[in-house]
Amino acid sequence: MTALSVIPVEGFPQVLPGDALVDLIAQHAPLVSGDVVVVTQKIVSKAEGRLVEIDAADPVAHKHLVEREAVRVLRRRGDLIMTETSHGFVCANAGVDLSNVARGWAALLPVDPDRSARRIRDGLRARTGHSVGVIVSDTFGRTWRKGVTDVAIGTAGVAAVVDLRGTTDALGRELEVTEVCVADEIACAAELVMGKSRGVPVAIVRGVDPTWLRESSVKDEIVRPYAEDLFR
Amino acid sequence: MTALSVIPVEGFPQVLPGDALVDLIAQHAPLVSGDVVVVTQKIVSKAEGRLVEIDAADPVAHKHLVEREAVRVLRRRGDLIMTETSHGFVCANAGVDLSNVARGWAALLPVDPDRSARRIRDGLRARTGHSVGVIVSDTFGRTWRKGVTDVAIGTAGVAAVVDLRGTTDALGRELEVTEVCVADEIACAAELVMGKSRGVPVAIVRGVDPTWLRESSVKDEIVRPYAEDLFR
Repeated sequence: MTALSVIPVEGFPQVLPGDALVDLIAQHAPLVSGDVVVVTQKIVSKAEGRLVEIDAADPVAHKHLVEREAVRVLRRRGDLIMTETSHGFVCANAGVDLSNVARGWAALLPVDPDRSARRIRDGLRARTGHSVGVIVSDTFGRTWRKGVTDVAIGTAGVAAVVDLRGTTDALGRELEVTEVCVADEIACAAELVMGKSRGVPVAIVRGVDPTWLRESSVKDEIVRPYAEDLFR
Repeated sequence: MTALSVIPVEGFPQVLPGDALVDLIAQHAPLVSGDVVVVTQKIVSKAEGRLVEIDAADPVAHKHLVEREAVRVLRRRGDLIMTETSHGFVCANAGVDLSNVARGWAALLPVDPDRSARRIRDGLRARTGHSVGVIVSDTFGRTWRKGVTDVAIGTAGVAAVVDLRGTTDALGRELEVTEVCVADEIACAAELVMGKSRGVPVAIVRGVDPTWLRESSVKDEIVRPYAEDLFR
């Protein structure tokens, strides 16, 4: 196993609705085959036109938009609304986000983040000739731990979950913990160089296990079905 | 912001109770000041003698040990017992782990993982002269996402949570999401080079934001108090 590099893509311009995100990434990111490109949800939503006007003077406008986007409200506390989205994600405020968008606008999650990731992956392959994995990342809270971390909401060309069943530990005993969510771990690694205030929306993770580079889906591999949920 | 390197520490020997973990890390890890050293819980527990004998032929021995270690059982499903530990962690099986320990033995969590991290940090500074951050990591599941990821259960010399309140986004608007759990993100980055079956129990994360290198505590910064919990 060699070292991994996590490389921020500097000088990325502000993204506007209709921008060709693939062209911007191809221009700014020094990619090679085998890289995983992590792209924040915010610029994917912007490029896909997933912006809605919101009355900045209306204190409940954001809340109403969250309630419209959510398919289910799990809990409320103060301004926090814990929701389930149409994708099956359980997150705060149905992913509706006001930061890093112009005043008077809110960004919604992509309709199908796995598809967004596939389009970027396919576009980068066509333009650069390099086969890369793509992760669309967002920032979620956690039930029992304070502070937020980044997670994968869409993947293409890189495993979401790696199944280690049937492999053994260093002492030859079969592993109990068998499914590792490498896509969320890669999203976390990328966030360390992006920061939230530095405006770095794309990072490259170079050197991941080549066996992880395969077709994948957050929806199929990571989203926990309602029936398997112990806490909803 | 420069790139981050995530470096596996190769050739680490099996750790036995009473081993001086600091000496082993100092010998095998090519550290420089500013590095963050991520050490898996398993070798910390072994070095600290947190091993108990368990009757491998008794199908309920593991369950009874889990129930003894847990301060609260939140849910049960099949072999899974969702527990709260004495540290305030909510995790499967009270952190009692059978993998990568000899048959007939189980590893318990360190009594105070922040203290374990501080001892390693202080020892490495004394032996190598380098000021490094230390994270003790473990592998936890997540409520609404399949697959496990690594988290920090103890920290020293590197922030657990970074508070961005008062900072602004790239458009000058105050950030809504303000507290990032960088220690968990660093633990995730490290796991990508450790793997569960390769027996790499230590990794170096080089190039983190130098402002993160400060006194810290998982217990104080990450563990969500019971009263703030929406789902327990």
